[in-house]
Amino acid sequence: MSFSITLPDGSKRDFDKALTVGDLAHNIATSLGKAAVAAKVDGQLEPVDYQLNKNAKVAIITNKAIITNKDDEALNVLRATAAFLFEAVAKKAYPELHFGEHAADKDGFYVDTDKTNQIKISELPQLEKAMKKSIKNGEKIEHVQVAKSDLEAEFKDDPYKGALLKNEKGDTVDAYKLGDFTDFGFDVLLPNTGKIKYFKLLSVAGAYWMGKSSNPMLQRISGTAFFKESALKADLKRRDEIKERDHRTIGRDLDLFFVDPKVGAGLPYWMPKGATIRRVIERYIIDKEVADGYQHVYTPVLMNLNAYKTSGHWAHYRDDMFPPMDMGDGEMLELRPMNCPSHIEIYKHHIRSYRELPIRIAELGMMHRYEKSGALSGLQRVREMTLNDGHTFVALDQVQDEFAKILKLIMDVYKDFDITDYYFRFSYRDPKNTQKYFSNDEMWEKSQKMLKGAMDDLGLDYVEAEGEAAFYGPKLDIQTKTALGNDETMSTIQLDFMLPERFNLTYVGKDGEEHRPVMIHRGIVGTMERFVAYLTEIYKGAFPTWLAPIQVEVIPVNLDAHSDYAKKVRDELNKRGFRAEADLRNEKLGYKIRESQTQKIPYTLVLGDKEMKANSVNVRPYGTDDEIAKSLDDFIKEIDKDVNSYSRKNK
Amino acid sequence: MSFSITLPDGSKRDFDKALTVGDLAHNIATSLGKAAVAAKVDGQLEPVDYQLNKNAKVAIITNKAIITNKDDEALNVLRATAAFLFEAVAKKAYPELHFGEHAADKDGFYVDTDKTNQIKISELPQLEKAMKKSIKNGEKIEHVQVAKSDLEAEFKDDPYKGALLKNEKGDTVDAYKLGDFTDFGFDVLLPNTGKIKYFKLLSVAGAYWMGKSSNPMLQRISGTAFFKESALKADLKRRDEIKERDHRTIGRDLDLFFVDPKVGAGLPYWMPKGATIRRVIERYIIDKEVADGYQHVYTPVLMNLNAYKTSGHWAHYRDDMFPPMDMGDGEMLELRPMNCPSHIEIYKHHIRSYRELPIRIAELGMMHRYEKSGALSGLQRVREMTLNDGHTFVALDQVQDEFAKILKLIMDVYKDFDITDYYFRFSYRDPKNTQKYFSNDEMWEKSQKMLKGAMDDLGLDYVEAEGEAAFYGPKLDIQTKTALGNDETMSTIQLDFMLPERFNLTYVGKDGEEHRPVMIHRGIVGTMERFVAYLTEIYKGAFPTWLAPIQVEVIPVNLDAHSDYAKKVRDELNKRGFRAEADLRNEKLGYKIRESQTQKIPYTLVLGDKEMKANSVNVRPYGTDDEIAKSLDDFIKEIDKDVNSYSRKNK
Repeated sequence: MSFSITLPDGSKRDFDKALTVGDLAHNIATSLGKAAVAAKVDGQLEPVDYQLNKNAKVAIITNKAIITNKDDEALNVLRATAAFLFEAVAKKAYPELHFGEHAADKDGFYVDTDKTNQIKISELPQLEKAMKKSIKNGEKIEHVQVAKSDLEAEFKDDPYKGALLKNEKGDTVDAYKLGDFTDFGFDVLLPNTGKIKYFKLLSVAGAYWMGKSSNPMLQRISGTAFFKESALKADLKRRDEIKERDHRTIGRDLDLFFVDPKVGAGLPYWMPKGATIRRVIERYIIDKEVADGYQHVYTPVLMNLNAYKTSGHWAHYRDDMFPPMDMGDGEMLELRPMNCPSHIEIYKHHIRSYRELPIRIAELGMMHRYEKSGALSGLQRVREMTLNDGHTFVALDQVQDEFAKILKLIMDVYKDFDITDYYFRFSYRDPKNTQKYFSNDEMWEKSQKMLKGAMDDLGLDYVEAEGEAAFYGPKLDIQTKTALGNDETMSTIQLDFMLPERFNLTYVGKDGEEHRPVMIHRGIVGTMERFVAYLTEIYKGAFPTWLAPIQVEVIPVNLDAHSDYAKKVRDELNKRGFRAEADLRNEKLGYKIRESQTQKIPYTLVLGDKEMKANSVNVRPYGTDDEIAKSLDDFIKEIDKDVNSYSRKNK
Repeated sequence: MSFSITLPDGSKRDFDKALTVGDLAHNIATSLGKAAVAAKVDGQLEPVDYQLNKNAKVAIITNKAIITNKDDEALNVLRATAAFLFEAVAKKAYPELHFGEHAADKDGFYVDTDKTNQIKISELPQLEKAMKKSIKNGEKIEHVQVAKSDLEAEFKDDPYKGALLKNEKGDTVDAYKLGDFTDFGFDVLLPNTGKIKYFKLLSVAGAYWMGKSSNPMLQRISGTAFFKESALKADLKRRDEIKERDHRTIGRDLDLFFVDPKVGAGLPYWMPKGATIRRVIERYIIDKEVADGYQHVYTPVLMNLNAYKTSGHWAHYRDDMFPPMDMGDGEMLELRPMNCPSHIEIYKHHIRSYRELPIRIAELGMMHRYEKSGALSGLQRVREMTLNDGHTFVALDQVQDEFAKILKLIMDVYKDFDITDYYFRFSYRDPKNTQKYFSNDEMWEKSQKMLKGAMDDLGLDYVEAEGEAAFYGPKLDIQTKTALGNDETMSTIQLDFMLPERFNLTYVGKDGEEHRPVMIHRGIVGTMERFVAYLTEIYKGAFPTWLAPIQVEVIPVNLDAHSDYAKKVRDELNKRGFRAEADLRNEKLGYKIRESQTQKIPYTLVLGDKEMKANSVNVRPYGTDDEIAKSLDDFIKEIDKDVNSYSRKNK
């Protein structure tokens, strides 16, 4: 026997008897032997016990992987090993437990277990302790080939492992053993638990078996692991920050909304407080748009499928649409994926004259889009959404003015919501490849010039993205930063030359002839769902007074003595259109005040003898330690100003 | 040959040769001969030329039928004859015309024709004239048996008659002839056009071939006919009244909404003006409910089908539900037919304590119900609707107070909308048949007593309907009268003992134990669609100021001289939250004022030199001939009071 191993730097080493990947690493350098966690053998990931016995290219994967995740594969091996160790200690602690799927990736690892024997979050520290013990002992993880029939016998009463086993090809299965415990379905594990060291069990959550909502609900234990302590600490800190701002966490803590896959994946229920925020936003945006010349309408969420065939959505967008419904008399109805064809119906309902243009149709339009269930997330990614939508129909020479008008409206709205971190991005057609786009050179040339002209007139900077335009027209995106630092498109102004053509839209010009209008799709704050998710994160749940579901919490110092006055103050505030509550529960004063702060209520009023006598209030604004005495009248003036100026004192 | 005819009074007449029904009538009495239009022969409707040649029971049908429609069959024969005559003269006037279906019933008659050669409404008088000429001439209508093959040859190029012919059984077809014109598909016609006399062609409208929206659109010419002139006149007057109040007519004239079966049968599009009315109502009712202790929510229009299996809707209500959608991963989603299961989810999202009860959940909840396409009508009968829905969850001993509270809210709302013509109807379980109902005697007994108690406390009269309760609980309906005098259920307070059981709803009582709440379904103004239809009819389109889509029309006397002042007044009003428009079109002053009245705008302001100098306005309130000069400030005070008091000056 004689063979040669080629290393990544091109150097070769010759051997005359078989050796493992681990031996090879040691052979190269003792430090490499210690750091090796796996290897790529001819491009295939293999464990350190892999036998080398013929010519091969080998790259050793080491534990130098750090938080930058430059070496994802090493981290994945580490995390898969941690998942395996978790299984082994959990099985020891709860012998009746079954395991579903497990995975390890750049976000950590998880193991699904069955729910009958539920693991509580409070039990995780105990399991961590057992894992640490094994790590300290440096227990050997054996890589074995097991006859499939043996595993079938072992897992014959396990509905999950039994099903997973069916996916394994061949008569023998690649498995790992730690003491008595055996599991399969891992690519590569470390040879010894001692290599895991820095890990953490993070959470327990529900997860459907195989990700299908028709299957039983299992519980998913998630964790993470790193080769360096500093990397683990940094990751845990990042997770805390995300959690603190995560609209799903805040949404639960402040009781704003929930999603329950049992009654509908991606279909949010807005609880009273979340609904109040949404209602205030909806009324605000409608009033703003009506004052700006928009005509608000209500159009059906269902439409004949033919409309989406005409629009082209059915041909190009079908995968994101809900299944059509056969109404039995030849009619196929479709839950609309967008509102444009509906607003086109409104436009077409009358013969339009140039005198009427621009015609601005707006709606809080409910739409449905089929997102994969794995992609769904809180209010951020949903299947039913209500879009702050608008379509304006203009003559070509009105594009610049209308575009500027929309832009001003958007910036005006941003100001009221205190959205300050954004930039503009233009998408043009590719001038070298104009045949890729809707063919009307005059429209493209003129309108692109007009859009730039409007930006220049307003003195606004922008990023240009040549060749990024949609088939049917150029657009401007307004990009905001989420609380977690990600880029997100908040608003869009999209020109459309195609739909007016496809739906044969016309207006009668000054010349008495029929002309084709340009359609402008525009969204200001996007969908109610995503916008409230975004606001929750940038405000960290401390909504400004005008949006806060409860604006004032009124707390009597003593229930017997001051409840009547508290009710009087509450009623007075409610009568004037503010949202006030009185906390008349039989709880301690300090507890109530703390809870009012936890609920991030802008104003807490504490009312005792002094206040009652003087018809005054003691104000504790959210996020401060201030206690300010003022007359009830003065307080009403203050909150009135606060609400009407959309101020964000508590940021 | 010898046979005997038995008349309705039991008397018999014997004959020894065949005779027609007409001969028989003449034989009985000359006057009966003249009045005969058809006969029932052994229960079968037959024409006057029907040959009697064997024993039979015969009842002569005469033209004594009057508007009370006591003799519907005679009127149907008359109207079918009028439809046939219409076809004959229309075919003569437009030889290229094809006919679709025709029918005659208690509402008149109609004939469908193809659209390529469209008949305009302005052409109807001409066709009526031709019909009258034939009537005057007393032309013979021949009843013939035609070989099917002959008709197939005659109609070989007619897609509609050809298809209808396929439905005719046997080798010969029962047909009628008038001169050259032949048609079939009539039960019985009169023998002579001279008998028609009092008829009227009423309208031209679109109708799908065979009533299917996937088929071509034909045009339907409708008419009616009577034996007496007074009956025709009375019917035409009734039709005018209906038309004048019909929300579909008003909805079109005032541009409030439209429904287009091509994009979705029963799915209304709310045009900007209709949408404004709806929005004002929605905000009003939400604010009213929130002030009354309701928590408004938003819940999805889709829900897992399982929820409707649990609720029992799928078992008992499936025919009225939309087809479920298979989401591909085992999830079946259903467009909700009602909101109760959604609000139950909200209730169940937290553990509830007796301290929280009553919990009042409300929503403007969109629902979908499958109505037969033939039953759809404007905003009155639709497939997509938004219900002013609410569910309150109470302990059994809170039923009386909560019921009284809901009732007061309903009456308060009625007052604001000036709904005065209503009465209360109670539905109890049948005391002799209690096993037909949800089995909890205590709940039924107690709650029925409490409902009555509440009514008595409030001093309200009511009608009692024993045995009319639903399976799951007693209810109170509030019955209003529509503008056309029909009874309509506007509001309902429905107790429900069953759903809390089926969904296992509980609250923790004072005793620390779990208890079952009672659920109260309540609707105040029903669906937005039906309510706006109802209001449109009772207001005849003259919406009170607080609801009017345009509250003030500002008209400059002279465009050059007064437009700026008109704009200033309009802007001043809009800034204060009123809905004002300025009519700056190049049209005559009188035309603009008339149009403002036609559009039923509450206030028309005419502004000339005098007004401009004095910063005043000349007010013409709708429905009056008044012209009242007042300062702009005084006018603002007036309209402000008008809006805020929900007054209905213009009734």
